[in-house]
Amino acid sequence: MNHTYAVILAGGGGTRLWPISRKKHPKHVLPLLGKRTLFQSAVDRLDGFIPPERILVVTAADQAEELKRQVPQLSQANFLIEPQPRGTASAIGLAASVLNKHDPEAAMLVLTSDHFIRNTDLFRLVMQVAVQVARKDYLVTLGITPTFPATGYGYIQQDAALPEKFDYPVYRVKQFTEKPEEGKARAMLASGDHSWNSGMFIWRADRILVEFANQMPELKSALDRIAAAWDTPEHSAVLACEWPRLKAETIDYGIMEHATNVAVLPTSGLGWSDVGSWDSLFDVLLPDDEGNVVVNSEHMLLETHDSLIYSNEKKLVVTIGLDDLIIIDSSDALLICRRDQAQQVRQVIENLKKNKQEDYL
Amino acid sequence: MNHTYAVILAGGGGTRLWPISRKKHPKHVLPLLGKRTLFQSAVDRLDGFIPPERILVVTAADQAEELKRQVPQLSQANFLIEPQPRGTASAIGLAASVLNKHDPEAAMLVLTSDHFIRNTDLFRLVMQVAVQVARKDYLVTLGITPTFPATGYGYIQQDAALPEKFDYPVYRVKQFTEKPEEGKARAMLASGDHSWNSGMFIWRADRILVEFANQMPELKSALDRIAAAWDTPEHSAVLACEWPRLKAETIDYGIMEHATNVAVLPTSGLGWSDVGSWDSLFDVLLPDDEGNVVVNSEHMLLETHDSLIYSNEKKLVVTIGLDDLIIIDSSDALLICRRDQAQQVRQVIENLKKNKQEDYL
Repeated sequence: MNHTYAVILAGGGGTRLWPISRKKHPKHVLPLLGKRTLFQSAVDRLDGFIPPERILVVTAADQAEELKRQVPQLSQANFLIEPQPRGTASAIGLAASVLNKHDPEAAMLVLTSDHFIRNTDLFRLVMQVAVQVARKDYLVTLGITPTFPATGYGYIQQDAALPEKFDYPVYRVKQFTEKPEEGKARAMLASGDHSWNSGMFIWRADRILVEFANQMPELKSALDRIAAAWDTPEHSAVLACEWPRLKAETIDYGIMEHATNVAVLPTSGLGWSDVGSWDSLFDVLLPDDEGNVVVNSEHMLLETHDSLIYSNEKKLVVTIGLDDLIIIDSSDALLICRRDQAQQVRQVIENLKKNKQEDYL
Repeated sequence: MNHTYAVILAGGGGTRLWPISRKKHPKHVLPLLGKRTLFQSAVDRLDGFIPPERILVVTAADQAEELKRQVPQLSQANFLIEPQPRGTASAIGLAASVLNKHDPEAAMLVLTSDHFIRNTDLFRLVMQVAVQVARKDYLVTLGITPTFPATGYGYIQQDAALPEKFDYPVYRVKQFTEKPEEGKARAMLASGDHSWNSGMFIWRADRILVEFANQMPELKSALDRIAAAWDTPEHSAVLACEWPRLKAETIDYGIMEHATNVAVLPTSGLGWSDVGSWDSLFDVLLPDDEGNVVVNSEHMLLETHDSLIYSNEKKLVVTIGLDDLIIIDSSDALLICRRDQAQQVRQVIENLKKNKQEDYL
């Protein structure tokens, strides 16, 4: 594993866990589930597996200081700072270019910073296998075996198993499907050959850069100019000149959907959650005997079932006669939402934008 | 009306509107329904009807300063301060004794401070009629024509109409019934001859003092000693000596149930509410087209119906997909309660006492 690096993507906005997660405090920088933030947990997960000097963090300028503060074990130089958000293709391309310049043998684990993974041991096992697969020049996507017909995730259909033998089943990818309608999601769930796209990828840096050259040549040229200046006094000037002109694009749409030799490593039992809505905390945190999940709050629950109570305020929360409710209290906003409507928080964000209630975003 | 006085009872505890109403801030001292507190509204209601110098307030020592602050138009001397709570019989007896000493012709309106009355004109009309009835030596109780089988109020059964003619129908009282079981409440509602006991009374001071002498002679003797010392330097010492030894009793149980010449003046259309639970705010405040009542809160209600949102915090309250819910946010406690379980707030108070969570009481 000498040449294996982790690249943690930590530039996301993440306002879906409003009102706790905010523009200035997106969910991965918050101690949502305990004492450590999701970002810290993403770094902790690599402890003893990838040494700190081989962990890169790609992030936005306005988050960098907070993230550096949260993981003092990482060197400042390991933070790659995007002047503006330009999609995951640009972020990953930057990391690949910089890594490739320093270590032409580099393999990279592209990891998310805002997801929950319960089973660290399995995570490490599949990452080790994925690196072996990547060393055979595959682009590996980490798949999650679906448990319900989610419409909020992309799906990956698998083809035949790879001819090589690995310690965990790995398949060729037949096709990627973006977030589907519910009917299509049900069909893919039933098919048994689809995984959710976790947004985590494993590949050699030089191998993915070939795909960039083929599929996004303009981006590749810009990345080359940025990488050439990376350790020089022109670093900042070149980045400031090139970056704003990049077209924002996702790695999935910009690269993966038309790449060659793409593999998927479907996993079940990772205990993975994208913590993408308040409802998803029921999957991540263990409900009590009444089906309730209570985080941080002093509470008195009377005849209350299957509800989430989350507070970052010092406040007594009393509930009487409630079922399937989500209650989130922050210092300046209180959300009370039926559990099956947790996705509607997006609508709240839209309304706040429309009403120019910037303070609440 | 030269000899007509108002006696406002303002010593109550009132924790049923928890968490807004608290031991130290009972509901009548709070601006629950708008800019004026219920206590201020009780005084406002007399404006131009009973002059300030003939308005007495009976209250507890720990509330007196706040109440004086709220109605600066009343003289300090018009506040009768109970060293400890000893029930409405003692409070009313004290006011009657003091009034009788100063004005042997005094008639008194015994008024509540923690109820809502929408129709001030009707209130004044019936009070004027009630005073005429009281001048005929009746003890008049103000009745409220019931609109549902309430189990939280006392009931008054009427007998024949009084032989005298008044501008509003007045009846002899057949009997008082304390808070009934639901079946009995339904029967009384159906009978058509029962009123709710509003806790408001109208009588001559000397007339009620005769009843005290007959039915509660020990209390009457103590009140005589207190009244004798009232405008003397011994005032405080006598009160401090006599008051703690009084037996706490309600005027209903201690006097009214066995008094002679008791009349009831049943009213409908007063727009009366005892604001006895959060649910009752739907009766007092006009719900919007979606059936919601929102007080004080900046809010965004999505698919929300028939719910109450009440906040004394500067906070955005967002609700999604809720029906028949009561949401009350205060600085240190948040209550979320199904509307038909609003009475359970009593249980919350009991639990807080049991758990010694004094700060929340």
